[in-house]
Amino acid sequence: MALTVLLCERILEGPGGGVKALEQLAEGLWICCFPRDPMEELVGLREGSSGSPVTLQELWGPCPRIRQGIRGGLEWLKKQLFRVGEDWYFLMALGVLMALISYAMNFAVESVVRAHKWLYREIGDSHLLRYLSWTVYPVALISFSSGFSQSITPFSGGSGIPELKTILSGVVLDDYLDIKNFGAKVVGLSCTLATGSTIFLGKVGPFVHLSVMIAAYLGRMRMKTIGDSDNKSKQNEMLVAGAAVGVATVFAAPFSGVLFSIEVMSSHFSVWDYWRGFFAATCGAFMFRLLAIFNSEQETITTLFQTSFPVDVPFDLPEIFFFVALGAICGVLACAYLFCQRNFVIFIKTNRILSSLLATSKPLYSALAALALASITYPPSVGRFIASRLSMGELLSSLLDNNSWALMTRNSSPPWPAEPDPQNMWFEWYHPQFTVFGTLIFFFIMKFWMLILATTLPIPAGYFMPVFILGAVIGRLLGEALSVAFPEGIVAGGVTNPITPGAYALAGAAAFSGAVTHTISTALLVFELTGQIMHALPVLMAVLAANAITQSCQPSFYDGTIIIKKLPYLPRILGRSLGSHPVTVEHFMNGTITTLAKDMPLGELVKVVTSTGLAEYPLVESTESQLLVGVVQRAQLVRALQAEPPSWAPGQQQCLQDLLAGGCPVEPVTLQLSPETPLHQAHNLFEMLNLQSLFVTSRGRAVGSVSWVEVPGSPGWNVVGEPM
Amino acid sequence: MALTVLLCERILEGPGGGVKALEQLAEGLWICCFPRDPMEELVGLREGSSGSPVTLQELWGPCPRIRQGIRGGLEWLKKQLFRVGEDWYFLMALGVLMALISYAMNFAVESVVRAHKWLYREIGDSHLLRYLSWTVYPVALISFSSGFSQSITPFSGGSGIPELKTILSGVVLDDYLDIKNFGAKVVGLSCTLATGSTIFLGKVGPFVHLSVMIAAYLGRMRMKTIGDSDNKSKQNEMLVAGAAVGVATVFAAPFSGVLFSIEVMSSHFSVWDYWRGFFAATCGAFMFRLLAIFNSEQETITTLFQTSFPVDVPFDLPEIFFFVALGAICGVLACAYLFCQRNFVIFIKTNRILSSLLATSKPLYSALAALALASITYPPSVGRFIASRLSMGELLSSLLDNNSWALMTRNSSPPWPAEPDPQNMWFEWYHPQFTVFGTLIFFFIMKFWMLILATTLPIPAGYFMPVFILGAVIGRLLGEALSVAFPEGIVAGGVTNPITPGAYALAGAAAFSGAVTHTISTALLVFELTGQIMHALPVLMAVLAANAITQSCQPSFYDGTIIIKKLPYLPRILGRSLGSHPVTVEHFMNGTITTLAKDMPLGELVKVVTSTGLAEYPLVESTESQLLVGVVQRAQLVRALQAEPPSWAPGQQQCLQDLLAGGCPVEPVTLQLSPETPLHQAHNLFEMLNLQSLFVTSRGRAVGSVSWVEVPGSPGWNVVGEPM
Repeated sequence: MALTVLLCERILEGPGGGVKALEQLAEGLWICCFPRDPMEELVGLREGSSGSPVTLQELWGPCPRIRQGIRGGLEWLKKQLFRVGEDWYFLMALGVLMALISYAMNFAVESVVRAHKWLYREIGDSHLLRYLSWTVYPVALISFSSGFSQSITPFSGGSGIPELKTILSGVVLDDYLDIKNFGAKVVGLSCTLATGSTIFLGKVGPFVHLSVMIAAYLGRMRMKTIGDSDNKSKQNEMLVAGAAVGVATVFAAPFSGVLFSIEVMSSHFSVWDYWRGFFAATCGAFMFRLLAIFNSEQETITTLFQTSFPVDVPFDLPEIFFFVALGAICGVLACAYLFCQRNFVIFIKTNRILSSLLATSKPLYSALAALALASITYPPSVGRFIASRLSMGELLSSLLDNNSWALMTRNSSPPWPAEPDPQNMWFEWYHPQFTVFGTLIFFFIMKFWMLILATTLPIPAGYFMPVFILGAVIGRLLGEALSVAFPEGIVAGGVTNPITPGAYALAGAAAFSGAVTHTISTALLVFELTGQIMHALPVLMAVLAANAITQSCQPSFYDGTIIIKKLPYLPRILGRSLGSHPVTVEHFMNGTITTLAKDMPLGELVKVVTSTGLAEYPLVESTESQLLVGVVQRAQLVRALQAEPPSWAPGQQQCLQDLLAGGCPVEPVTLQLSPETPLHQAHNLFEMLNLQSLFVTSRGRAVGSVSWVEVPGSPGWNVVGEPM
Repeated sequence: MALTVLLCERILEGPGGGVKALEQLAEGLWICCFPRDPMEELVGLREGSSGSPVTLQELWGPCPRIRQGIRGGLEWLKKQLFRVGEDWYFLMALGVLMALISYAMNFAVESVVRAHKWLYREIGDSHLLRYLSWTVYPVALISFSSGFSQSITPFSGGSGIPELKTILSGVVLDDYLDIKNFGAKVVGLSCTLATGSTIFLGKVGPFVHLSVMIAAYLGRMRMKTIGDSDNKSKQNEMLVAGAAVGVATVFAAPFSGVLFSIEVMSSHFSVWDYWRGFFAATCGAFMFRLLAIFNSEQETITTLFQTSFPVDVPFDLPEIFFFVALGAICGVLACAYLFCQRNFVIFIKTNRILSSLLATSKPLYSALAALALASITYPPSVGRFIASRLSMGELLSSLLDNNSWALMTRNSSPPWPAEPDPQNMWFEWYHPQFTVFGTLIFFFIMKFWMLILATTLPIPAGYFMPVFILGAVIGRLLGEALSVAFPEGIVAGGVTNPITPGAYALAGAAAFSGAVTHTISTALLVFELTGQIMHALPVLMAVLAANAITQSCQPSFYDGTIIIKKLPYLPRILGRSLGSHPVTVEHFMNGTITTLAKDMPLGELVKVVTSTGLAEYPLVESTESQLLVGVVQRAQLVRALQAEPPSWAPGQQQCLQDLLAGGCPVEPVTLQLSPETPLHQAHNLFEMLNLQSLFVTSRGRAVGSVSWVEVPGSPGWNVVGEPM
């Protein structure tokens, strides 16, 4: 109303006079309907700023209302886009950047692999030369990878996911997301991948780490841009999105990228993060596939490992049983794998010779291990039986073939070509004496321990893809066995349908990798990779069965690594551990906290500060009452103490109160626990809010503190919450 | 070691003598390797219990070691299964039960629909009779549905998801999950569904509600079984799984069931709940499809709306642009739909005639609305142009057809059969004068307002499926237009590929339904429904575009209903609202709390308790100090007061302290806020821990409380956290 009156006054004074008054009044009212703050509008009018709805010039031009409407619309659009941009643009940049890096890395790796293949082909028939050309390449690459990455940062080896998991749960691991680490990881990972299936390592883990590093960098950039430097939760959101992008840009699979990263990384997450993850992952996956088209590798956007399983009757009902059995087998084997892997790593760490070798010359250890692995995979020797001429991608796509190899080779025996035949890559899996069963079993056994050996190499490498392929081999094995046992297919309801061994390979890959990583979203990943989702139920059931077995027997691959590396870690309190219910904070809190009382003399204060090394101290009202008032940072306390040197005379008893009045800031305690708080609630708080520590008060008195270390079960994985 | 020694002693005393000593020592060592507590083992040995590894009888039998191993294994398995069973069995029961109900409901509905079709076919050619047979059926069903469900529980109407959302965020809505409501909802929903596409309503929402009711019931049962009655978080877990099962058993889609329910229901969730949801949803979906096979409807487990889009080149790169444009169109139309729907409901509520009609005779209102809707869909009249002879499922599967109708009808005009042709259901969409474009546009316009009218009916009904079909129509329209514009397909890279309008229908359905419900998982749902996931990226991009537009302009369908129904609701604080950061609890807490001091005379206490109606009171140390000690329940206070009548004499000043000493229990305050706690943190706490209220203390003094009502922005949807 005030606006309208003001407008009327202006109009009566203005040049238009009485004729246009009514029209402009209507315009004024129309402006009132705009969803803007009237006060803002008024200020705009008085100041005659550019945002003001009526100016002299405009009133004389044609169609002032329409022009104004358009301008308003554009302003609104600009505001909308800018508001959105603030956050979403960074996510999009993250996706696009990671896709570029992923594609560039693939491109470089493929060039190196092609050169290796060419060398091996052209070097002649001498076995020695061929052997050398086969082995020197991976040995050189692996020792370079190890030496290069370790020389830059000593913690650039491994997959990086365990460390990320720790970071995302609130622990600060300095330098781990530093951009210096980025270079070491990119170069090291490229070298690792260029060794192909010889060393048999993947890309996912380090790529997630790379993506989170970029996300952290972009997050810092964003905070500098908008000047919101202390918003830690925003930064965490960016990291979560980064993890999703990492998976999505490796597999071009946005759905499972988001879900897998959530399952692996966190125990709680918000739908808001999940949406952001989807956006960034979609941008990344789209860009990644787009680059393949621009490079004329593909006609259009398709899936990475397209299958062509029969559509009408993809599987018969009784086959569900075999799928679940496959899941159970994969679960048991995953337990075995995790057990062996963990204990082998511990063995390496405790063995005196090996650990001293690893401590002094990592490249030498890497080279020796790589030499062993490469010698075994030399195609004319043992490599003949483990399809070693196929790359990781070729191995997977050959295993997903929907024809039964056992049935096809029953009467005719395919040749062993001089080069792997791109049309019939499964020829590599066939051996006249061994048959496909022999090679598949031999492949699994050999690669099982070779992979365990490879995981001990101090190089940046992912362990998801090899596990995925091992699972596919298990599935293929069962599928081939079934196709031989039921050559006509399983008869159900009068109709017979041939068995598709590829579907079992699919389910096996999902179940084994899901069991090793304790995730379910691998079930979705296989569909996104193959483009067909008809086996949703059997694959999901296999994955659930495998997870049920593995989760109750072994920690996941990542949790196991956390345990071995002794990273801080908050284990899940299992819902079924009823014994943990009566446990309260009182039982496990740190009851001996150092408090600073306001009436504490400065001399005593200095003594306390110098004798303890805490980063912050709880401030209490008085030594007697111990009423918690706030928190004082050690650094600021020291600064305040240094700034106030003259009054140190022993006569005038100055106390902390004066120091605080002199400008030493006190931070409020925003959340307090009680000694009666149940363990479950405290655990939930730490898990969900990513807290470092909380103070415990009883009737206002500071009686203790609880931090990561005190919440029960921190070091072990199978602790279910009994007070320690 | 102690165990081994003990064993040696026993063996030397035992009947086997020295010969078997070594063997049995090995056995003892083998037992040592078992991951059991050695102390437990020792106790077992001493007591000679059944779990004891060696007893006299056993030592004489054959193969004691093997038998023992087997027995141990079985014991272990039993323990494992029992431990698992405690929780997982209930989830499985939930899935199986809901699948049975879903299937039985579908079966009943189909029988009724078949009877209706038969009547309509057999009643002769008289238009009046046909019209009556067409309209009387839905009118009768809807008025019965409305009357029956409303007579049992007045809040059984609608989808139920908004109320569930409120319940899951911690608000207690009494009776809403009562089993009495269940009957009303099942019968009402069956009647609603039996009207088919005439009234154009779906099944998802109420079915989720039904599933959550069963979950709550099973949860209560489980708690009674294991005697763990006060574990509220466990109960909540069960409800979350229930929601997932509800969606999964309607669409036989476990992945999107879990994700959709998470996105719609909660703002935070734990990975643990997500796994449980997957397990229950898989059981449900599997059982649901199994029943279809047992009933000989299908040969094997397939998807509900199987498509056969081309596999090699599913879409061309430039088509991505049209997919995103389709998403934007769907987003704008979803805004329009949500706006119209909300305002129409408000109009109905505020219009005097309609609201009094709804208040007094709901069945009459329902009958009138149903009559209007049924008359319009009468096939020989307007129904001819809106494919009204197809059921909801047929509408969807016809829209997903991968041939271009516009191209197919360019030269030849298909007939309008007397009955919908199951092989060519799309004939229903064709009209010689209107062409397919005319019918599609007309369908959208008519169903748009008809659906809005139908949502006001006071019957149990879901609104997801109709929205899904509307989206498919939008997509189909664009797809058909593109196929006419580019009859040869879009040329890219020298190869032309025909356009598949069905893929656009798929994307449209996902985008429109995703925008209306503010979810992304609809993108996954369409793939699970159709069995092909090659369009993952374009569909996801369309859904993201649609969501970006709708989420920034309108509340979701469910949030809108929450606003209209004035249910308690905690709106999301948008991350970008930086203005909300300096807001602390002090600004919005309820500062006038009624505390009970320990030194309060009983007379005053009675006055306080009778004058206020709170369920619990904060207990403070003394009137002067106000140090928060705990919480006293009103009910227990009243009981304690009643139990202590003799000492009411005015002379002896008894106070609350004595009452507490007399047995009135004090509950601890487990979590306290400070006046300085930022709004963001308080909001997070309420959102994640599903709290009802928290006390605010300052230096131990109880200074206020914060509950749902006080956290800023409770009633509105677009409040971003400014203090009110």
